[in-house]
Amino acid sequence: MPMTGEDYRESLQDGRVIYYDGKRIDDVTIHPKTRSMVDIVASTYDSEDQERREGRFSLPRSVEELRLKMDDFIQWDDLLAASILGFLTLRTVSHRMADDMQIYRQRMADWNKHCKDDNIRLTICLTDAKGDRAVRPSRQADPDSYLRVVDQTPDGIVINGAKLHATGAAISHELLVFPTKRMSSEESQWAVACAVPVNSPGLTILNAVPGPHHEEFENHPFSRHHIYPEGFAVFDHVFVPNERVFLNGEVEHSATFPHSLGLWQRIGGSAKMAEEADMLVGLAHLLAEENGLGRIPHIKDKLAEMILHATMVRAALEAAISNAEFTDEGYATPSELYTNAAKYYGSTNLSRMLNHIHDIAGGSVLTVPLSGDLDNPEIAPYLEKYMSTKPEGNGAYRTKLMQSARDITASGYAGTWQVRVLLGGGGLYAQKLVASHHYDVNRAKALALEATGLGAFNGTS
Amino acid sequence: MPMTGEDYRESLQDGRVIYYDGKRIDDVTIHPKTRSMVDIVASTYDSEDQERREGRFSLPRSVEELRLKMDDFIQWDDLLAASILGFLTLRTVSHRMADDMQIYRQRMADWNKHCKDDNIRLTICLTDAKGDRAVRPSRQADPDSYLRVVDQTPDGIVINGAKLHATGAAISHELLVFPTKRMSSEESQWAVACAVPVNSPGLTILNAVPGPHHEEFENHPFSRHHIYPEGFAVFDHVFVPNERVFLNGEVEHSATFPHSLGLWQRIGGSAKMAEEADMLVGLAHLLAEENGLGRIPHIKDKLAEMILHATMVRAALEAAISNAEFTDEGYATPSELYTNAAKYYGSTNLSRMLNHIHDIAGGSVLTVPLSGDLDNPEIAPYLEKYMSTKPEGNGAYRTKLMQSARDITASGYAGTWQVRVLLGGGGLYAQKLVASHHYDVNRAKALALEATGLGAFNGTS
Amino acid sequence: MPMTGEDYRESLQDGRVIYYDGKRIDDVTIHPKTRSMVDIVASTYDSEDQERREGRFSLPRSVEELRLKMDDFIQWDDLLAASILGFLTLRTVSHRMADDMQIYRQRMADWNKHCKDDNIRLTICLTDAKGDRAVRPSRQADPDSYLRVVDQTPDGIVINGAKLHATGAAISHELLVFPTKRMSSEESQWAVACAVPVNSPGLTILNAVPGPHHEEFENHPFSRHHIYPEGFAVFDHVFVPNERVFLNGEVEHSATFPHSLGLWQRIGGSAKMAEEADMLVGLAHLLAEENGLGRIPHIKDKLAEMILHATMVRAALEAAISNAEFTDEGYATPSELYTNAAKYYGSTNLSRMLNHIHDIAGGSVLTVPLSGDLDNPEIAPYLEKYMSTKPEGNGAYRTKLMQSARDITASGYAGTWQVRVLLGGGGLYAQKLVASHHYDVNRAKALALEATGLGAFNGTS
Amino acid sequence: MPMTGEDYRESLQDGRVIYYDGKRIDDVTIHPKTRSMVDIVASTYDSEDQERREGRFSLPRSVEELRLKMDDFIQWDDLLAASILGFLTLRTVSHRMADDMQIYRQRMADWNKHCKDDNIRLTICLTDAKGDRAVRPSRQADPDSYLRVVDQTPDGIVINGAKLHATGAAISHELLVFPTKRMSSEESQWAVACAVPVNSPGLTILNAVPGPHHEEFENHPFSRHHIYPEGFAVFDHVFVPNERVFLNGEVEHSATFPHSLGLWQRIGGSAKMAEEADMLVGLAHLLAEENGLGRIPHIKDKLAEMILHATMVRAALEAAISNAEFTDEGYATPSELYTNAAKYYGSTNLSRMLNHIHDIAGGSVLTVPLSGDLDNPEIAPYLEKYMSTKPEGNGAYRTKLMQSARDITASGYAGTWQVRVLLGGGGLYAQKLVASHHYDVNRAKALALEATGLGAFNGTS
Repeated sequence: MPMTGEDYRESLQDGRVIYYDGKRIDDVTIHPKTRSMVDIVASTYDSEDQERREGRFSLPRSVEELRLKMDDFIQWDDLLAASILGFLTLRTVSHRMADDMQIYRQRMADWNKHCKDDNIRLTICLTDAKGDRAVRPSRQADPDSYLRVVDQTPDGIVINGAKLHATGAAISHELLVFPTKRMSSEESQWAVACAVPVNSPGLTILNAVPGPHHEEFENHPFSRHHIYPEGFAVFDHVFVPNERVFLNGEVEHSATFPHSLGLWQRIGGSAKMAEEADMLVGLAHLLAEENGLGRIPHIKDKLAEMILHATMVRAALEAAISNAEFTDEGYATPSELYTNAAKYYGSTNLSRMLNHIHDIAGGSVLTVPLSGDLDNPEIAPYLEKYMSTKPEGNGAYRTKLMQSARDITASGYAGTWQVRVLLGGGGLYAQKLVASHHYDVNRAKALALEATGLGAFNGTS
Repeated sequence: MPMTGEDYRESLQDGRVIYYDGKRIDDVTIHPKTRSMVDIVASTYDSEDQERREGRFSLPRSVEELRLKMDDFIQWDDLLAASILGFLTLRTVSHRMADDMQIYRQRMADWNKHCKDDNIRLTICLTDAKGDRAVRPSRQADPDSYLRVVDQTPDGIVINGAKLHATGAAISHELLVFPTKRMSSEESQWAVACAVPVNSPGLTILNAVPGPHHEEFENHPFSRHHIYPEGFAVFDHVFVPNERVFLNGEVEHSATFPHSLGLWQRIGGSAKMAEEADMLVGLAHLLAEENGLGRIPHIKDKLAEMILHATMVRAALEAAISNAEFTDEGYATPSELYTNAAKYYGSTNLSRMLNHIHDIAGGSVLTVPLSGDLDNPEIAPYLEKYMSTKPEGNGAYRTKLMQSARDITASGYAGTWQVRVLLGGGGLYAQKLVASHHYDVNRAKALALEATGLGAFNGTS
Repeated sequence: MPMTGEDYRESLQDGRVIYYDGKRIDDVTIHPKTRSMVDIVASTYDSEDQERREGRFSLPRSVEELRLKMDDFIQWDDLLAASILGFLTLRTVSHRMADDMQIYRQRMADWNKHCKDDNIRLTICLTDAKGDRAVRPSRQADPDSYLRVVDQTPDGIVINGAKLHATGAAISHELLVFPTKRMSSEESQWAVACAVPVNSPGLTILNAVPGPHHEEFENHPFSRHHIYPEGFAVFDHVFVPNERVFLNGEVEHSATFPHSLGLWQRIGGSAKMAEEADMLVGLAHLLAEENGLGRIPHIKDKLAEMILHATMVRAALEAAISNAEFTDEGYATPSELYTNAAKYYGSTNLSRMLNHIHDIAGGSVLTVPLSGDLDNPEIAPYLEKYMSTKPEGNGAYRTKLMQSARDITASGYAGTWQVRVLLGGGGLYAQKLVASHHYDVNRAKALALEATGLGAFNGTS
Repeated sequence: MPMTGEDYRESLQDGRVIYYDGKRIDDVTIHPKTRSMVDIVASTYDSEDQERREGRFSLPRSVEELRLKMDDFIQWDDLLAASILGFLTLRTVSHRMADDMQIYRQRMADWNKHCKDDNIRLTICLTDAKGDRAVRPSRQADPDSYLRVVDQTPDGIVINGAKLHATGAAISHELLVFPTKRMSSEESQWAVACAVPVNSPGLTILNAVPGPHHEEFENHPFSRHHIYPEGFAVFDHVFVPNERVFLNGEVEHSATFPHSLGLWQRIGGSAKMAEEADMLVGLAHLLAEENGLGRIPHIKDKLAEMILHATMVRAALEAAISNAEFTDEGYATPSELYTNAAKYYGSTNLSRMLNHIHDIAGGSVLTVPLSGDLDNPEIAPYLEKYMSTKPEGNGAYRTKLMQSARDITASGYAGTWQVRVLLGGGGLYAQKLVASHHYDVNRAKALALEATGLGAFNGTS
């Protein structure tokens, strides 16, 4: 029988060690900092359709299936998206691993079956503490700066380290731990991948919760649905049984994990970015209309710029999908070149789009009163009277629209959003590198040589 | 005897009608949403030096005095800055008014003396509800869409309307009410300026408080000092005695108020922007150093871009000061051209600078754990261990620095800041207009005609 | 028998009235300002393959055929591209015209057959003189400000006016004259479309030739192949026989011509822009390599930015093709939304890409000596010695590369290119308008309403 | 008796070895590629005023004198500006040299007197061939890759090498040769500075001439006055007598020359850039007016952006002057910080400003007919008729204005200008470095530490 929302709640009351601001959270399903997201995730269990659930776990085999996968992606909440990402990543890793890694491939297959059958939620743990950025993992003053195997038993491994950006860990079932980058031959103890149940002894999760304070949910109609606890996961001699260990010392496969993840993460991020850009265009138009500014030239100009931005993000997403590459096994993966370009372009311009919304909304995006004011019959008429811009009276509606615009574009959520978009998948610098790597420089040089008449391109890059 | 912090607190317990989220705040000095700012303002009363206090109220008479005034500006909290702005604005208005306005000039002088002697705090109220943006004040469906005189007695006037962006009104002594723009000859009832004590019957102030929630102050080391309540001030048949009325129907002077205010507001804003840009440069350097990234080329490049940004904002501020214009009475006022250019340039690029800080800080700017975690001796060692990037151990310090960076650049404060910087003084479009108006287009045309050899410029613009 | 290069030359010696800098050009095949382009066009006649020639004249019926058409496009010289554009435009116009325009549709079909059979070259004439921009065609002080029918005979019409941007007119066979925009009902005399042989009596073509001076061809290895004379075509009582008249007064179809043209023109322009962006990436890499700068961080950063630029232009082109729209007759036309976004994005950033090349090339892109110096055995060794950056000696090669870079990025050609890219198809403002018109604003609003929880979108835009 | 224009012409007929495109120029005063600039320089000799001439050679001693010096700068032609730059640079070098360099200081003083008394024109030679960019001067495969002393006699030195960007060398009197950068202790033979008459045996100057071809001067009303030959100066065993040698092996002073030059070059460049930005604003307004577009919103927006650009460049120039630093001897030198910021900002945005002009001008900026057409009475009426946009007839004037706009913004001159502005004084990267070096990072950090409450700044950078 599939897990229900109630099952999900119960499954989180498992002894996990969760902290918020220095205090232990005994039960994440009732603590004010986590319960709202537990409610949202629980509701996804209750509402989901069996057939669609099955569909999630398939790898696309055509451009069309890849496009549908992206459509699904933007419907999922972040925790479900991460879970499917983890699932797809392990399948991709398995395809990329050599045959002599058969034992890991079997374990991954088994564990993936568990994920699917039990419909669990995962958090992917990639980024290590890293210590001194100029020093390799094996040379750090503290060897735990990168997560590593500190002991080994016949039944499993013991790991130490910290993973810094574990979004939603406090309300997940398992952590999927990957090496953060390629390890060199002398770094086998850092070449470790595994799945770790959140209530494993020795695992402690500290949390930052960047959404609105729970007492202020009413005034955050959008962001209150997007307050995943950001986990700082500390592994202090955590034992992982063999069947959950997917890499243990084979350094040549250490980079396979982050690379496979990156592929799905960036295309998923781009799909979301395209959808969000369209949403912002819509928000800007609603604001312009309620403000009665739709015909002011500089407002029209900003609306058009936002449309062009959204269109360019979507164009790159479209190109990434329609130029999909196919693996030997026949699976469609998005074009790295276009995916990274989409990510770079979209994240470079998001702040400017938010500024456009501020300019279109005007100062009320900051100063508009609160939802409780609309509920108080003594003062609500003031808002209706003074927030109206149309003879038929749109004061209450415009008040709510401004509250939403504040919540989406000028709140802590907006800051969080911009950081995520900028740094998710590795920062602008990483996208530049990857895009450059996948661009056909030789074809470009051949075009230039033809233009200059300096002779045919000699084929070296 | 000058007002003390304690006097200030008492003065706020005066029956004022203040709402937050639909509920009446009985005492702003103890309510969790307002008390922290009351504490900060009270502290400015206790710490201030008599001589400096006197100095605030002088208009500068030289470039050097103007420069010193700007230095003062950036030291003041926003409520004190607004109070002095209001004072200086009324003095400028008085200079600009014709002699037949002698009665208003006298009232302003008297009231200014009261401000200075009693050292009160003011909130300037400019922006009206405005109703339909395409329709003049006198043609609105609701005539109160712009604040106006609805009745007149021998002793004073009765006003109706709303002022939408009254920052700090809930904790000020008086509101200084100005017309929002030039009124035409048939709009005399909307040509009204006056000072209104906050506890006047009929005055209701709704509040939005864009800072962090009071339970989370510890995790907002910067922004907890900057959470002025944003007031939405409703005037419902408020009586204003004659001695506080500074304009009543003389439409030809309606624009004198916003123009005089704009002058001081924009230069003050530019001075603050220059200082803030320098602060961001400093923050970026601290982060780069603690992250050990100071020598990475793309980080150095971002640091240099931030320096160039800060330098250009300051250059425009410097040019605005050193090209001061002098009034007939010999007072130095900043160059409108350079002031508006500073404002435009600075606000256009702020978001990009914040993005640079995110890129330099990395993902921990979002996910770094909280201050309570540092206080818990069981888990603090994890932070010291895993947040350190240097052999000597900088984990706790780096944790705090990241918390500050999150608070300054990715919190609700950051959103509020960007909106303020963008829209304060009227939006980018307004700065473009004013700068264009003050630029010497004829000199430019003469240069172009000389370059093209098309003959001397004929002097018409 | 198909036309040969020699036939083409002869066909231009037909009495046409061509001026350059105030002097009549008697024979465009030998005049120094036109002969080089005549040679290039003639060579396209000699080299062309019969089968490919047939293929040009087909309208694409699938995404794949549309893609192939774009591939062809970027191979053609501008005059051939314009000829095919004119052909495709008339076919599109014909599809869009109502059945009662059967007579025009037949004439267009006949004339198109002539174009195809005789393989002639066309120049499309769109932009009128326009006179006072604030006044409609019918209200101009000079009614000829927009080209119009001034007389009518049983056999044809007589037209007056000027078409200002007739690229290549001096070396074309016929001018294809279109109305520049929608005409209103009282403007039937301005609703005229027709084909006009270049040697028609009354037709005078003034020329600007923006390429390098013919004595300096050797130093312009790229641009000497791209110096189409820009024609300013004056129609002074030119008679056009009925069989060449494609619109004469039916104002409701006046806009069909420019709209149909715009569709093909912008997608062709975008295809070319994508290819040129790749060429610039190649040129930048060649320069970085010869300068030995390929590993300098700020150079790598500029190369990566150029790659991202080229990738985004191509992404938008790809999206325009893969999201083709189909006419009722089953012909594939590129997506207007993505086409206009490509055009806007590409042209906005071209100058910046050229600046990147300058920064990568260094000062020699301006000061490198000339090709004659390389030919002079006394001084060539100096260039080999001092332009070399590699032990094996790359001085002569690097000299030539710098000469090409100067020619492509810092010459009159570069200026011409930037203007064309910016203004071809109507300027950035036009692209903003068209893109906004084709973007699905309602879907965007629905997304925003869902995000804000403000209820379902009510369907009005 | 001061040199006259005629004297100047004669002085150039001195046996100098000048090449253009592989051919020797026997007499630069009559060769078509050089005579026009000779004429212009000669005219500056004839027109100049004795008193102003004296004034040029003074170093400023106050902010006010520095401002006047900048005003002079923008009046001078480039050759005169370079001459004065060279003069001022040597004086600055002399101040910075230690006392034990007395012999060089005396030689510089003597030679400076000769420059002043004989009123000669100089070309500054800085940039060497450089060979492999990754290798130091002393390790180059070809030791002449940086200019060096190859022999020494009792009377002087013999030098070998090439200087690549010697603007105007062909029509100057002497070359002022500086080391291009700091030399290390083993690089004494490359630490050489001297003055070399252009007709010295062994000196060969190859030329690129980036202006319009001389047959097309009439159509280049602006750029025909700005076609300085770009010299590629080859020193092949050139003897320099001792009295013209200003450095010979003292490596510790090698960087003093380029640094002193850079100071004056960048402020001069910024002054010119500010003036040119104003000129472009003027040109844009003239075009908007003649096109009748002055009230179109997107045109007004572009005009305002151009004004803001020009204002920001000038603000930085103003700040550089008003924040002048004073040498020990009491001479005013511009602020390096603001000067470099001006240079960076101005050159980053020039291309965009030219694009704005193209958008305002419209396609005629490319296609407008030529000056000869206006002179031909048969076709000139066509231009008057069809280029007019006003009832009173502005066709001929608008034709000329478009020709000028084409010449200034879309010609080879425009390309040359953009390269100069970008790379003059070392490229954007160099400005970033220098500005960062002169910015007070410690003050910025102190501000950030105060904002974060993380304690006082400890004073280390």
